[in-house]
Amino acid sequence: MRIARFDDDRIGVVVHDRVLDVTDQITAQLDALPYRAPYSLTRRLITHFTAVRPLVEQLVAELGPDAGRPLEDVRLLAPVADPTKIVAAPVNYRDHQSEMNEAFHISSLGFFLKSPSSILDPGGTVRLPYIDRRFDHEAEFALIVGRRASHIPPEQALNHVFGYTGLMDMTMRGGEDRSTRKSFDTFTPMGPWIVTPDELGSPEDVDLELTVNGELRQKANTRDLIWSAARFLAYASTVTVLEPGDVVTTGTPAGVAPVEDGDSVELTVDRIGRLSVEVSAEGAVPCPTGGAGRGPVPPPAPERGK
Amino acid sequence: MRIARFDDDRIGVVVHDRVLDVTDQITAQLDALPYRAPYSLTRRLITHFTAVRPLVEQLVAELGPDAGRPLEDVRLLAPVADPTKIVAAPVNYRDHQSEMNEAFHISSLGFFLKSPSSILDPGGTVRLPYIDRRFDHEAEFALIVGRRASHIPPEQALNHVFGYTGLMDMTMRGGEDRSTRKSFDTFTPMGPWIVTPDELGSPEDVDLELTVNGELRQKANTRDLIWSAARFLAYASTVTVLEPGDVVTTGTPAGVAPVEDGDSVELTVDRIGRLSVEVSAEGAVPCPTGGAGRGPVPPPAPERGK
Repeated sequence: MRIARFDDDRIGVVVHDRVLDVTDQITAQLDALPYRAPYSLTRRLITHFTAVRPLVEQLVAELGPDAGRPLEDVRLLAPVADPTKIVAAPVNYRDHQSEMNEAFHISSLGFFLKSPSSILDPGGTVRLPYIDRRFDHEAEFALIVGRRASHIPPEQALNHVFGYTGLMDMTMRGGEDRSTRKSFDTFTPMGPWIVTPDELGSPEDVDLELTVNGELRQKANTRDLIWSAARFLAYASTVTVLEPGDVVTTGTPAGVAPVEDGDSVELTVDRIGRLSVEVSAEGAVPCPTGGAGRGPVPPPAPERGK
Repeated sequence: MRIARFDDDRIGVVVHDRVLDVTDQITAQLDALPYRAPYSLTRRLITHFTAVRPLVEQLVAELGPDAGRPLEDVRLLAPVADPTKIVAAPVNYRDHQSEMNEAFHISSLGFFLKSPSSILDPGGTVRLPYIDRRFDHEAEFALIVGRRASHIPPEQALNHVFGYTGLMDMTMRGGEDRSTRKSFDTFTPMGPWIVTPDELGSPEDVDLELTVNGELRQKANTRDLIWSAARFLAYASTVTVLEPGDVVTTGTPAGVAPVEDGDSVELTVDRIGRLSVEVSAEGAVPCPTGGAGRGPVPPPAPERGK
């Protein structure tokens, strides 16, 4: 099942190239539950998906493939708006460790956190804040937590997954703390929707690729992750309780490169879909922090048009 | 005004040594607003405090100083349960920079994020996760955001503050990412309540001190912050939108030292109050990540009983 958020915080099921709006029916069922959780409809749906799924499936079956609206007529939103946290993997592909000249990888680094305020909708614009710093794209395969997870073993981790989505971990290079370099507003494009585990299949064999203005920059398969999605999720749950709707993103492969004003960046994740954003440097100012010239040394920028 | 959260998510005003429960009246007024925000009562109160404050003041005046329950009869909770983020300052006192042998301070580092799941109630127990790593206390002066803040200038920053509280930024030493080292469950004790700006006065002259088993370990005044609360809040708002209820904590002074199983740690913040926690190593396991022996070098542990 492909679950999208769109327009004015509507929830829909994506069937082929159409979106079936199930917002009202879901809301009615969720409101009838004894406990009204104090957060967004999306997070309530994720929290109670086992209870709500039969209704959603019934609606899809009754309405048939021609119901709903064409995808191009709706404005897709990031599939989760208000995770309590975004847990991200530093240096989780060996080819990226190598290109960044990093001495250590995830097993020595643990995770870092991105600000939930950095989430960007599909089709949105990544805003580069500074005129004098380098900003890179980082293509990632992400999972959305479905059931509260605390100290879970790796072999049970995937039972706590609500679904999978694409994510770009936009990053400023330099010596500032990772949370700062990766938390600027608009620096976490997510989408285009969430694909549930039964539809995606194994998260350990998923192709992803990222292009800038149509030129291929990153291409990888999740089988090359140093810590698999399951292992990373299990580890993170031993540090911090993971809540339904939380985003856990698995890290980026080699090929990170700068983005510039006017660029179009597109991430394609196999069995999920395409996530596209634009880049703008409008309003950028000189950087107020002094981290330039420190931190891991990224690869040289590729020649444009090559 | 001193605003506490207590017992089963009740909201109260602390007057002298008593807590006046205003939950039902606040809830009724908030529910009558045209928009019911999808989050906790505390965050709804913070978001709409200008509208609700007259009612709260009226209740306090009508009921008088002998109303309510004695503080010792209630179980205080962390004053905010569900911030969308906890923004924290790395290396923001020069004496702490010196004791940690850090080459850089906040102006080169920006901020880091702690997991909201790490929040601990006053009187709670900090659980040390590993048997083979060093864990330190870090005493901090924190503020709670009251109005959404994005790209605000320092001179307007304090207008966006709902109030102030005490915070311990419990920290694992080593080379893991700061978010990991500071986000373990129970690693962010907060409280004992929030003091509003009209009652606290200037945040630039606040004494704080921290003891372990009654021995003084940290003692400072916020006038010695490298970036003041206002400047740090303003800077953070240029990176990531700050939402009502978000926690912004200003960093720790010199005197960080290890905590051990059985320790009692107490933070006293002038014009706010005392926050006490216990420390337990029950259930600790060997650390699964390899950051030991890396990262900034902390000061040697002080002799116990000295």
